[in-house]
Amino acid sequence: MNKQQLIENIRRKQSFLCVGLDTDIKKIPQHLLQEEDPIFAFNQAIIEATAPYCVAYKPNMAFYESLGVQGIMAFEKTVKYLREHHPDQFIIADAKRGDIGNTSEMYARSFFDHIKVDAVTVAPYMGEDSVKPFLLYPEAWVILLALTSNKGSHDFQLTEDAQGERLFEKVLRKSQEWATDEQMMYVVGATQGSMFLDIRRHAPHHFLLVPGVGAQGGSLAEVAKYGMNDECGLLVNSSRAIIYADKSERFAETAGEAAKAVQEEMAGYLKEKGLI
Amino acid sequence: MNKQQLIENIRRKQSFLCVGLDTDIKKIPQHLLQEEDPIFAFNQAIIEATAPYCVAYKPNMAFYESLGVQGIMAFEKTVKYLREHHPDQFIIADAKRGDIGNTSEMYARSFFDHIKVDAVTVAPYMGEDSVKPFLLYPEAWVILLALTSNKGSHDFQLTEDAQGERLFEKVLRKSQEWATDEQMMYVVGATQGSMFLDIRRHAPHHFLLVPGVGAQGGSLAEVAKYGMNDECGLLVNSSRAIIYADKSERFAETAGEAAKAVQEEMAGYLKEKGLI
Repeated sequence: MNKQQLIENIRRKQSFLCVGLDTDIKKIPQHLLQEEDPIFAFNQAIIEATAPYCVAYKPNMAFYESLGVQGIMAFEKTVKYLREHHPDQFIIADAKRGDIGNTSEMYARSFFDHIKVDAVTVAPYMGEDSVKPFLLYPEAWVILLALTSNKGSHDFQLTEDAQGERLFEKVLRKSQEWATDEQMMYVVGATQGSMFLDIRRHAPHHFLLVPGVGAQGGSLAEVAKYGMNDECGLLVNSSRAIIYADKSERFAETAGEAAKAVQEEMAGYLKEKGLI
Repeated sequence: MNKQQLIENIRRKQSFLCVGLDTDIKKIPQHLLQEEDPIFAFNQAIIEATAPYCVAYKPNMAFYESLGVQGIMAFEKTVKYLREHHPDQFIIADAKRGDIGNTSEMYARSFFDHIKVDAVTVAPYMGEDSVKPFLLYPEAWVILLALTSNKGSHDFQLTEDAQGERLFEKVLRKSQEWATDEQMMYVVGATQGSMFLDIRRHAPHHFLLVPGVGAQGGSLAEVAKYGMNDECGLLVNSSRAIIYADKSERFAETAGEAAKAVQEEMAGYLKEKGLI
């Protein structure tokens, strides 16, 4: 999916919500455990209930890999299901990969050629040649970690160099030499509300993938206030607060309601900004 | 496997070689493609030929993941085979993972509980809480990226802060607050020979996993000269130069010879240092 299509979807659905499919076998409703593939059954129900209110899904690879082959199969089935039934959804493999060139090539082949997602999250530590192989696929996106939402983000990401440039700022600056905003987005944690001003100074036109709203404590109002640009430029992810809103047999219905509530709040911010 | 056992294996086998199982379906000998599981058949033959000359194996996850479910099955079979037939080998899942705490927990569960490797490579960008969940398993190791062997390592890893500390040095320093040298190693690229002096100033007692010898151009002599400590403290990885030394039907025999040649050179360095 290209940038223009993503923006059109956001306008049409009045939403910049990304639903995080962090599907944990230990957290899904008990009755699903009788299904042949409980993880996929859960995802399918969540997708059907939430798709009208979101523009993207973000399966987190860790949750699927922790189940071995069964988990990988459920992941691949989920992507295939989205591709077939909801082709207007932007699919992000949250994998945080990054390795030397020939290895990143293998990861890129895996995600873009074999599984066919739209975007992969990538860690910047190994630099340019660890990122570039992902950019060789047309309409494939790299979502590079810039400023993350966890406590440990302070350990290295905020380190200032001799010129006063912080590491996440250097990541934003250097990586713009590798790709345009048509193929690159950045992960920016919502727990750092006013930091969006700094991010936007360095990356005014890029889409930002924002985790950390909901269970991790970030505020959607702040993200919209400081992070939205005149093409929206935001994908705000919510995982636990939507998919585990209810563990009873009506879990999917509740998830849909939770997604709808977020979408309605988002529609308000899009209207304020004159985007819809 | 604990540190003492690893050191004993190095002394006994007169080798600190790690064989990288970067098994690419496009590069393995043609005749193996008739096998039911060509990737596993290749790994098994390589392991049988090289095991006398090495102390560790490092499957790189990208190569397995690029094949989807089939690849993951071949990876799991390879680890199981090593556990059963070569319990003295240290198994490293080269995955370069790293995510927020609850996600890193899932990765740790995957690698240490489900698949049962000895160590996982982890990227430091997200800081303490992305690393710590891996340390909760007894005798499980984190091998943290410090200074990598690729060109892109210059983009961020060498950035100096206002006090003149480079990012990789900060990673070495901070991470020692999270774990001791009984549970943590560092990835240090062999293409940066004399940099081992700097690394050893910050991490005199840690084991270093050194990729980049062979195909990537690093020199084993330099690594031994600058990087070896009085417990050896090195695992030097070679992938392509060993496993793809020959693509004929006698590929395994040639791989064994290539591993033996490296082992003999290593034995020389261990003797010079008085370790054997």
